[in-house]
Amino acid sequence: MFYTDGQLQYKVRVDSPNPLFAKHLQQAIGGVEGEIRVAMQYLFQAWSFRGPKRYKDLLLQTGTEELAHIEMLCHAVALNLEGSKEAVKEGVAAKSPIMQAMLGGMMPRQYLSSGMGALPVDADGMAFDMSNVYASGNAGADMYANVAAEATGRTLATRLYNLTDDPGMKDMLAFLIARDTMHQQQWLAVIEEIGGVNALPIPDSFPSDQENQDFNYTFLSTSTPDGPPPPEGRWSTGPSLDGRGQFSSEPARPLGGEPILPSPPPESMNQTAQIQSGGHGSPQLGSERPEQKGGGMLETVKDSMLEKAKDKLS
Amino acid sequence: MFYTDGQLQYKVRVDSPNPLFAKHLQQAIGGVEGEIRVAMQYLFQAWSFRGPKRYKDLLLQTGTEELAHIEMLCHAVALNLEGSKEAVKEGVAAKSPIMQAMLGGMMPRQYLSSGMGALPVDADGMAFDMSNVYASGNAGADMYANVAAEATGRTLATRLYNLTDDPGMKDMLAFLIARDTMHQQQWLAVIEEIGGVNALPIPDSFPSDQENQDFNYTFLSTSTPDGPPPPEGRWSTGPSLDGRGQFSSEPARPLGGEPILPSPPPESMNQTAQIQSGGHGSPQLGSERPEQKGGGMLETVKDSMLEKAKDKLS
Amino acid sequence: MFYTDGQLQYKVRVDSPNPLFAKHLQQAIGGVEGEIRVAMQYLFQAWSFRGPKRYKDLLLQTGTEELAHIEMLCHAVALNLEGSKEAVKEGVAAKSPIMQAMLGGMMPRQYLSSGMGALPVDADGMAFDMSNVYASGNAGADMYANVAAEATGRTLATRLYNLTDDPGMKDMLAFLIARDTMHQQQWLAVIEEIGGVNALPIPDSFPSDQENQDFNYTFLSTSTPDGPPPPEGRWSTGPSLDGRGQFSSEPARPLGGEPILPSPPPESMNQTAQIQSGGHGSPQLGSERPEQKGGGMLETVKDSMLEKAKDKLS
Amino acid sequence: MFYTDGQLQYKVRVDSPNPLFAKHLQQAIGGVEGEIRVAMQYLFQAWSFRGPKRYKDLLLQTGTEELAHIEMLCHAVALNLEGSKEAVKEGVAAKSPIMQAMLGGMMPRQYLSSGMGALPVDADGMAFDMSNVYASGNAGADMYANVAAEATGRTLATRLYNLTDDPGMKDMLAFLIARDTMHQQQWLAVIEEIGGVNALPIPDSFPSDQENQDFNYTFLSTSTPDGPPPPEGRWSTGPSLDGRGQFSSEPARPLGGEPILPSPPPESMNQTAQIQSGGHGSPQLGSERPEQKGGGMLETVKDSMLEKAKDKLS
Amino acid sequence: MFYTDGQLQYKVRVDSPNPLFAKHLQQAIGGVEGEIRVAMQYLFQAWSFRGPKRYKDLLLQTGTEELAHIEMLCHAVALNLEGSKEAVKEGVAAKSPIMQAMLGGMMPRQYLSSGMGALPVDADGMAFDMSNVYASGNAGADMYANVAAEATGRTLATRLYNLTDDPGMKDMLAFLIARDTMHQQQWLAVIEEIGGVNALPIPDSFPSDQENQDFNYTFLSTSTPDGPPPPEGRWSTGPSLDGRGQFSSEPARPLGGEPILPSPPPESMNQTAQIQSGGHGSPQLGSERPEQKGGGMLETVKDSMLEKAKDKLS
Amino acid sequence: MFYTDGQLQYKVRVDSPNPLFAKHLQQAIGGVEGEIRVAMQYLFQAWSFRGPKRYKDLLLQTGTEELAHIEMLCHAVALNLEGSKEAVKEGVAAKSPIMQAMLGGMMPRQYLSSGMGALPVDADGMAFDMSNVYASGNAGADMYANVAAEATGRTLATRLYNLTDDPGMKDMLAFLIARDTMHQQQWLAVIEEIGGVNALPIPDSFPSDQENQDFNYTFLSTSTPDGPPPPEGRWSTGPSLDGRGQFSSEPARPLGGEPILPSPPPESMNQTAQIQSGGHGSPQLGSERPEQKGGGMLETVKDSMLEKAKDKLS
Repeated sequence: MFYTDGQLQYKVRVDSPNPLFAKHLQQAIGGVEGEIRVAMQYLFQAWSFRGPKRYKDLLLQTGTEELAHIEMLCHAVALNLEGSKEAVKEGVAAKSPIMQAMLGGMMPRQYLSSGMGALPVDADGMAFDMSNVYASGNAGADMYANVAAEATGRTLATRLYNLTDDPGMKDMLAFLIARDTMHQQQWLAVIEEIGGVNALPIPDSFPSDQENQDFNYTFLSTSTPDGPPPPEGRWSTGPSLDGRGQFSSEPARPLGGEPILPSPPPESMNQTAQIQSGGHGSPQLGSERPEQKGGGMLETVKDSMLEKAKDKLS
Repeated sequence: MFYTDGQLQYKVRVDSPNPLFAKHLQQAIGGVEGEIRVAMQYLFQAWSFRGPKRYKDLLLQTGTEELAHIEMLCHAVALNLEGSKEAVKEGVAAKSPIMQAMLGGMMPRQYLSSGMGALPVDADGMAFDMSNVYASGNAGADMYANVAAEATGRTLATRLYNLTDDPGMKDMLAFLIARDTMHQQQWLAVIEEIGGVNALPIPDSFPSDQENQDFNYTFLSTSTPDGPPPPEGRWSTGPSLDGRGQFSSEPARPLGGEPILPSPPPESMNQTAQIQSGGHGSPQLGSERPEQKGGGMLETVKDSMLEKAKDKLS
Repeated sequence: MFYTDGQLQYKVRVDSPNPLFAKHLQQAIGGVEGEIRVAMQYLFQAWSFRGPKRYKDLLLQTGTEELAHIEMLCHAVALNLEGSKEAVKEGVAAKSPIMQAMLGGMMPRQYLSSGMGALPVDADGMAFDMSNVYASGNAGADMYANVAAEATGRTLATRLYNLTDDPGMKDMLAFLIARDTMHQQQWLAVIEEIGGVNALPIPDSFPSDQENQDFNYTFLSTSTPDGPPPPEGRWSTGPSLDGRGQFSSEPARPLGGEPILPSPPPESMNQTAQIQSGGHGSPQLGSERPEQKGGGMLETVKDSMLEKAKDKLS
Repeated sequence: MFYTDGQLQYKVRVDSPNPLFAKHLQQAIGGVEGEIRVAMQYLFQAWSFRGPKRYKDLLLQTGTEELAHIEMLCHAVALNLEGSKEAVKEGVAAKSPIMQAMLGGMMPRQYLSSGMGALPVDADGMAFDMSNVYASGNAGADMYANVAAEATGRTLATRLYNLTDDPGMKDMLAFLIARDTMHQQQWLAVIEEIGGVNALPIPDSFPSDQENQDFNYTFLSTSTPDGPPPPEGRWSTGPSLDGRGQFSSEPARPLGGEPILPSPPPESMNQTAQIQSGGHGSPQLGSERPEQKGGGMLETVKDSMLEKAKDKLS
Repeated sequence: MFYTDGQLQYKVRVDSPNPLFAKHLQQAIGGVEGEIRVAMQYLFQAWSFRGPKRYKDLLLQTGTEELAHIEMLCHAVALNLEGSKEAVKEGVAAKSPIMQAMLGGMMPRQYLSSGMGALPVDADGMAFDMSNVYASGNAGADMYANVAAEATGRTLATRLYNLTDDPGMKDMLAFLIARDTMHQQQWLAVIEEIGGVNALPIPDSFPSDQENQDFNYTFLSTSTPDGPPPPEGRWSTGPSLDGRGQFSSEPARPLGGEPILPSPPPESMNQTAQIQSGGHGSPQLGSERPEQKGGGMLETVKDSMLEKAKDKLS
Repeated sequence: MFYTDGQLQYKVRVDSPNPLFAKHLQQAIGGVEGEIRVAMQYLFQAWSFRGPKRYKDLLLQTGTEELAHIEMLCHAVALNLEGSKEAVKEGVAAKSPIMQAMLGGMMPRQYLSSGMGALPVDADGMAFDMSNVYASGNAGADMYANVAAEATGRTLATRLYNLTDDPGMKDMLAFLIARDTMHQQQWLAVIEEIGGVNALPIPDSFPSDQENQDFNYTFLSTSTPDGPPPPEGRWSTGPSLDGRGQFSSEPARPLGGEPILPSPPPESMNQTAQIQSGGHGSPQLGSERPEQKGGGMLETVKDSMLEKAKDKLS
């Protein structure tokens, strides 16, 4: 279970409150690279973990730390929103163009929905969607997902660092960037511990003789015949990284033939008869197109009109 | 910041693992009435709270407790999924119809996506969407939202209790139901503390003379003239609950006239000319429909066909 | 069933069209505190209502009134967008910085997707998600959800009122604010009618002897030992609001022990062997870490390199 | 299967990079009228197509072309974002108000999440949701959905064309607009081929004698008695478009009576007893309201207070 | 504004309550082809309509009718759920396999979240997402979207009709199917009125000389050289449907060359240096791969290991 | 741009059509570990790539291959759905319990929405949400995200392999599993090429002296004082993986003090006065709770009742 002491993990200070930065900071809270995501990801991985306790503890405790990061960032958003008071007070008809631009650049819901606070949304206002929380049960897969999360998270944090000149914000971000460094390192350390490249491919327990052995170390180039040659690199020659095969490269070619589905049953309500007649032939072949006899929308009209015209004129 | 001791808040025991119940339990994890929602809701309310510390602490500590409830439920899901091993092993072509029915009733992603673990989704597999986390900044509004969350949450927990005969699961749910009771009570206690009905309407700080005084204590019945009479009750006569007005009831009638929009500018790319001509008159009035002259899709075709037919026949 | 007279419930007038306000108004249409939400919420509650007709009528008729509010707000958005014609005409390369700022502050989709009209989205452009429509079947729970919806809705409306100086918009919002007052009151009136605090806890029909009696009136503080003391208030001493218990307060302590899951079955494809060996012990214990022998990613490489180096050098 | 030559289908040139336009272009990538949607829609229709090969090929090849349009638009976004370098460098505290306005008008995630690239989101930053991909299996229905997609898509493209003065962007859009013209035409051509109006109603294979024959060619006006008269037009008199009926028009009237649901079972946990007593009568009728005796929240309190007061005073 | 008489538009009767059908019916309520979608779509189109009143009334009144269809379907769901009482009562551990199968086939949230009522979700439990509501402001585009909505809606209704033998349900669906027929017809009637094919392409007001004239009536086949020939049909020869061009067909060829982006600025935090060195050349060319010197992850390790091995062995 | 030959990359054969497996296969199409995700992820990474062409080609061509995998899986779904004809024909009232169980286990929308075809949704019917497509612009971060995608994808494919006994399906999955092996390998090969651990941390270009140097190689344990000791492993001692620091481990302690926000401005509409008075003190301190005098909801009522009772009794 969980506890709180109501203190911040690291100091959060805003020297010059800036509502535009309050919008950008939302990405680190509710964005796909943000802290809600990693908190929930590590905790869900921990809660379903079926293995040694020390890995579970590592996940559980790191997920718990990430909760403190959401807390810090929410505080930072609220402090930056102090800078929006004037704009909100003057409103959309503010005389000063600066106030108008400020209101235009702000995130509407930080005022409308939360009265000057952070929201569990990204910098464009999209609510965080838990489908971005990955916990596959396979610890190897999850560790790579965690490295990726920390890598995109640290990239985001450095971009936020670039956007601000505020010493308080830079100090807070420098701390969060450091934590992302450590977290990248620690998930890589787990990868190393469980065998590194020797644990590949993930999952490692699938019997290799049941895997198709003709295509598991071959780069298949989907380039067209007159397109660029297959890209060459570490992936196209030499031993594979897992030491279990030799890389090669060849053009991708269709081995499966043409996919053909049977005609739909009447229950499918699929407009079958007309589609078939439109096809002038069997559904599977539909090959040559026989001479068409007036079947079209306009043609049909034309014919019946012609009849009526004949009647009319006669 | 936050801490964990890796222990469960209350014991979680499953006597007869049941994968069907593992699906139903998901609603209490990632459903809109579930624990992720209340955990995030109380924490976000706390993190943006601008008022007395003891209210903030109440939110923060209760949000922290809810994290422990997610943990308990995830453990319960994993234990129940132990009952699915056979079904998963036999697969979709299981000879036994019972195995097939079991696999048909299970949540596919509890095996496919998590390898026998809980997911941050509801009982139908929909990922939790953070737009369901309410933190308006107005403590009164938020307290009612919290009571509602605990009321729907307790209703859900009692329904889950109904569905199972497992003593371990019933014991766990009896604990969670008790916590929902307390949490309902504590948010109501805050409502009482801040003035109860005296703090209404929410927000209480909007100047009452700027509110339309003709419609703020009147039930407006949108029943049709031959429909049922306006429903009568506490809301239709007597003093209002906030003591600031007298309830009354009257039929809703349109006071705003017909909404009329100007024609769209060319930049709108709104098919203006044709729509207007289709309307045979000014866009605002569009009143009577003058005699139509062949403008329709079929008519147009008809006319030109008629011409051609004439030509052909002549 | 439903009828319309094509009239507005209350007059909607915009004196100074302002596209920036058109963006903010979206929150009252498609936001979680907005009118689509309450319309659908009351109607869905009514459509599944299993109780006295007058409550059902109250829900049905109020839901029907909310439809008229969406209509008013959509008209207000369209009228405000009249102010964007110039900006749209000049486009993103507008010479005037004012035009550029206006275009920057506008909601792109109000032009791109609707040609100067309202959308069923919130002020940040997020489409309304029907998971925010609560209809639990339990009338008590639903009434609290309805009070919460009207409380956040009225808070939103007053914030919008603050943002504008337009007399027409202020008049329209003063009407909507009044209706939110009444709707808050009427749902509270139903709560009172069905017993008020006597109907608690929700649901009231769960047998109280099946609820855990040790934790249903106790505030459990998740504060750390050196954290702040448990917050005290109406919720920590005295009789509970429902009169069924006595409030108390105590530190939350783990009663459930450590959650332990069995090893995963082979079908789980969970990288079991490597994780276990990484754990150097049984999955449940994983306690001390025995001397490591080259298991890591880099170590493995190192060893084989060493062998090769030896060969090479010898 | 699919191939690529790494070339653009049509040239993409940006003369004056404009980050504000980079935001607007997103609608054509990840918006509901955008290219991801049509690409996926045509491909999914093709992949499940059960009919003549030439229709399947038409869908498959057009879906493949749309992939090239996403590619072009992503390149256009990236080129336009070259214009944001200065704003990003100066950051949220930029001295120049122009830089601030530019940053305020930009889409935050085009920098924060992608480092100056396009995202699979719309112009308000909402991620594309695949529920907007329609593939019903009924080719007639799908063709109309495709015409609609190209019609809204072309409308969007012309609006984007209006917004920019950049010759390169105008040239690219003129190409995309032309392709939308052709695609509208080609789906209409399929409709004509499969019978046009003769293939209506969709699906055409439902036995007409099982359809309710009293209401299938009648416009039912839901106008109120004192509302506007039913709108008249091609749809209210004369032969129906499919030639199978005669249009008529009449007021909609309720034919189904009042919907009545039985009382909920105890398992529903629906607060039944209290709701019923609140209704003072049978749930189905709930007709007149008998004299109320203290049932309300405040009333209850009042009574017990009264007792206590009596005690106190005596 | 809107009114209700609390009556059903058409009778809803369930002879044999079937909880499995209650799940399937959800698709017609909250599915993308369902009634919430068309109700909201027609109403939003009406509320932003800038043209003749009779078209607006047509949209408004039809949208209002669709609300009555949601009402009917919700009642049908609730009546069908009467059949689930036994299964819910017995719970997940029901002795009878039939009860278990029934519970497995039911939608969990119809009990857990609504206590035996309908939800605004589709048949797989996904909440309706308002991004599926199309209202482009262009009446032509919207009419095609409306025809498509009614075509997929009627297809869905006939499939539901197939699934049930219940006379009451068949009768209700026969009514809804008839209304879908009429609604298809009426939107087509509007298309005819505003000019039919003469109003194409949509939008019709974009100046045709600004559209690329080389590609607006040409089918571009993305088939590979050795793939199938371009599909031939009404779309590949003859006059275009709008009478403004001649259809032709040709292979799609890349006209835009290779897309090249400049190197990212340092602010992009894009791992530039290493990617470039990995590319061993200029980012635009990245042509041949010069001899690699130890840059890889394993290589680097190898080298330093080699050094150490040398040291060790020496 | 892109081309298609209408052939399958690898043969897709179903020996015993199984509609239950058709549901499970959806996870590989529209699930977060599925093929739509990787196709879009690699293509979006390629389209915004700012670096050597051969990396861009690698991404572009692999993304193009993934499109062929969606195609294969959609064909597999349609073929498996052939097995559902009987169940659909018999409907929800099927006499045979096997038919009923089959219908209960099927995905409703594969019949209702697509007439026996695949959908862009996961195995629980949730539409794929493009927020799961990661393209950060930082090639290092993206490569780890790609490895993670292929690792979870291969895990999913092996789980699907477990579920089926169908030789055709096993053959197809053995091919897809092999491709996932290769794709894991190739993204790891890129990581090696760009420097492997030497390129860490990601992004590598952030100046290390601006990162907080006290916390970037330290595991911070959020365990409580009486909780488990910090987990030890490769991450807690020795050189960090990037060779730039030394791992250490220490308890996490709050360094940021208590977060305090100023009182909200009146514009926030935050119920300020009442919350403050409820707090009986200054918002920042809110320390001891002075004697309360009747402020609560019930208390207030009590008092006025008392007055009235006095009146009444006197």
